[in-house]
Amino acid sequence: MPLAPTLKQRRQRLASHFNAPALLWSGCATPRNFPANTHPFRPSSHFLYFAGLPLENAVIRLADGELALFMDEATPAQALWHGPSPSREELADKMGAEQAFPLKELERFVGDAVATLKVQDSATAAHQEQLLGRSLPVAKRAEHQDLQLLQAIVQLRSRHDHYALEEMRRAAAVSVSAHKAGMAATQPGLTEAQVRAAMEQVIMAQGMTCAYNSIVTVHGEVLHNNHYHHGLGENDLILADVGAETETGWAADITRTWPVSGQFSSTQREIYDIVLAAHDACIAAAKPGVEYRHLHLLASRVLAAGLVDLGILVGQPDDLVAQDAHALFFPHGVGHLLGLDVHDMEDLGDLAGYAPGRSRSDRFGLGFLRLDRPLQAGMVVTIEPGFYQVPGILQDKGNCDLYKNLVNWDRLAQFADVRGIRIEDDVLITDSGCDVLTAELPTEADDIETMVPEPE
Amino acid sequence: MPLAPTLKQRRQRLASHFNAPALLWSGCATPRNFPANTHPFRPSSHFLYFAGLPLENAVIRLADGELALFMDEATPAQALWHGPSPSREELADKMGAEQAFPLKELERFVGDAVATLKVQDSATAAHQEQLLGRSLPVAKRAEHQDLQLLQAIVQLRSRHDHYALEEMRRAAAVSVSAHKAGMAATQPGLTEAQVRAAMEQVIMAQGMTCAYNSIVTVHGEVLHNNHYHHGLGENDLILADVGAETETGWAADITRTWPVSGQFSSTQREIYDIVLAAHDACIAAAKPGVEYRHLHLLASRVLAAGLVDLGILVGQPDDLVAQDAHALFFPHGVGHLLGLDVHDMEDLGDLAGYAPGRSRSDRFGLGFLRLDRPLQAGMVVTIEPGFYQVPGILQDKGNCDLYKNLVNWDRLAQFADVRGIRIEDDVLITDSGCDVLTAELPTEADDIETMVPEPE
Repeated sequence: MPLAPTLKQRRQRLASHFNAPALLWSGCATPRNFPANTHPFRPSSHFLYFAGLPLENAVIRLADGELALFMDEATPAQALWHGPSPSREELADKMGAEQAFPLKELERFVGDAVATLKVQDSATAAHQEQLLGRSLPVAKRAEHQDLQLLQAIVQLRSRHDHYALEEMRRAAAVSVSAHKAGMAATQPGLTEAQVRAAMEQVIMAQGMTCAYNSIVTVHGEVLHNNHYHHGLGENDLILADVGAETETGWAADITRTWPVSGQFSSTQREIYDIVLAAHDACIAAAKPGVEYRHLHLLASRVLAAGLVDLGILVGQPDDLVAQDAHALFFPHGVGHLLGLDVHDMEDLGDLAGYAPGRSRSDRFGLGFLRLDRPLQAGMVVTIEPGFYQVPGILQDKGNCDLYKNLVNWDRLAQFADVRGIRIEDDVLITDSGCDVLTAELPTEADDIETMVPEPE
Repeated sequence: MPLAPTLKQRRQRLASHFNAPALLWSGCATPRNFPANTHPFRPSSHFLYFAGLPLENAVIRLADGELALFMDEATPAQALWHGPSPSREELADKMGAEQAFPLKELERFVGDAVATLKVQDSATAAHQEQLLGRSLPVAKRAEHQDLQLLQAIVQLRSRHDHYALEEMRRAAAVSVSAHKAGMAATQPGLTEAQVRAAMEQVIMAQGMTCAYNSIVTVHGEVLHNNHYHHGLGENDLILADVGAETETGWAADITRTWPVSGQFSSTQREIYDIVLAAHDACIAAAKPGVEYRHLHLLASRVLAAGLVDLGILVGQPDDLVAQDAHALFFPHGVGHLLGLDVHDMEDLGDLAGYAPGRSRSDRFGLGFLRLDRPLQAGMVVTIEPGFYQVPGILQDKGNCDLYKNLVNWDRLAQFADVRGIRIEDDVLITDSGCDVLTAELPTEADDIETMVPEPE
């Protein structure tokens, strides 16, 4: 599928939802420790959706289904240091843009009615405000025509077209290979950093980047863990949450949990199979019209039922979920939208994730849910139930009192070698059900065990 | 060497050069595509020099040789998601700080006389300005007490202490391994991205990061090349400029150039040996008191002489260098300071690189020199001569006219398979000469050839 017709279709769809002109900036690379040493450039996802190419310091104008590209060409001095680059006309042609101008021409296209979004890098944001002559709140607080533009973009970006899905399948395939490499590289005595490096190498070798900072840890109970210094103990589980992003910004997001020794202990396997049952139940139930919140509660019930069977929770699964007892071990949501961002459109707050009129719950077991909408064909969501023994939750006095009679703490103590397990796949909602984009990577405990080498 | 005594020595040395109180901010992680998906955090190098630990959103106060740490402890909610972290007191103890406060206490320590530096991330910079009640120019335009603070910091950071050198040796050792891995992974038909991945994997596996965006390319003539999509042709040279940075921010910076086939062609080897002769001459001449500009001109003369011997340049080497004819093929400086930044203290413009009263030359052959000071024991500099056939230089009409009689263009055409060669090492100036921190990585063409496998 070539790029230009896809982009044309996207802007025509935008025009059917929003009829004012819009300007979208790509942004600029930001300094790391000094101005010339920048972080790798990542354009604004909203820009990328309509421009298709990762151009730095570029602007597009979308109006009436037409695209104008604004960017400056490399100066001779820049070409000298950075090599030849395609001309503005060549890029415009590749994008199918109807017009192309140098940046200074932007001035001719600003006015009260122009809608825009504030970008992430502040240098560009300052330029946006100066050019438009108005201050811009962060995207999630946009108002007036900017909010209307966002609402239209959410409509488009929530349901992926063929081009986007091809990109996401590429990201998924490379991410699957990365996880296989991580499992194959596992040996007791190595460090988390070595497994991470084996995984990210696969992504980098394909010319892709990581869609987010990888989690590769033997402390899966630390949910946002970006440390990699621990050694791999032979009784540990590794939880790896690693996903690739294609050159044009499309993401994958996969988590697997595997035993360092290549063999789950009996307690690890019992919990693993419960998490997998929750994962599988959600995928079996995912189809258009189903509320994503329903999948979250389904995962919660399956987890609660499994923990009751193991004697860790005490009571009826439905009652336990109603009391949020499952959230002691599964404190996050079952997943989120996936697209150009790993948490797609999270820059817009809950505008994309929550249906109009809905907002976050105060409930312990629901407040971290990032998505609360009925599923639609063309959406891609993650399904990622987990089980964690988070000291901050399980040792919290309030929780201990509240759930005193619902948890068999002595029984739980027998599962001390299960600190954190998560199983996450990327799921495309189809007309009749769903398609797991990451299905090439096994989930069954038996299969996982065969992929991890025996300790040397 | 433990951290706390080193930091104490650094701030006592600062106090001997600068007697007002100084506040240094570490900065905050910056968003990549949405606020919660950040680039990996890298603290301000000036903060790191005196704080030693990569703390996010922290401030230190240096006054009279004493250190106060300002930072907030993780909230229970943060600890829940990010895991346990050391307390403020534990960190202050590790740093040997005399005092430790929460961030809100900073208000008590601001005043007209407080010197500071603007950090790279704009969110923190805005906070700095608000707290101090004054606007801050970018660091290289600092004035008054801020400039005096910078001048004192330049004094300190230009000559490395034992702790810094230990860190830089660690970064150098890992970078050497990365280059060896890159050579070992080379095969015709692979891509630049695959070689890059093999190199960066080594750095990541050690828990380090890259000090800068790697250059790994068969188009070495593109000096700032951050593309990795080209295939490796069997007659190509790979130029790889890749360096590690330790967990506390200390950098290495190494370039090697090797043949994809494992065998230099005769033309490639002839040019390689000239670049190596320039490299070796600079290292032989580097010692305290020698002007770094002298090394640059020495490299230029050796290159010119070699190119005369090959029949590419026509004339006397000294005359050719006086006319900048060498710069047709060696258009950059022979190196720069190295430390916490790969171009150390480049955020300060030329304040660190140029001795007081000196400024950049207008000459084609000198204008890109980043360092123009007499060498001192304890400095670490790179030595990185190169030879490039940059189309933007060699096809420039002005250059063709100007150097018409100094270049044998027909002879040059015979060297078309040499697009770019650079050989770069990290050199510590010692009391009597210098010590090459990256000497474990061979430079001789014969040795390089043995490190690249034969094509399969």
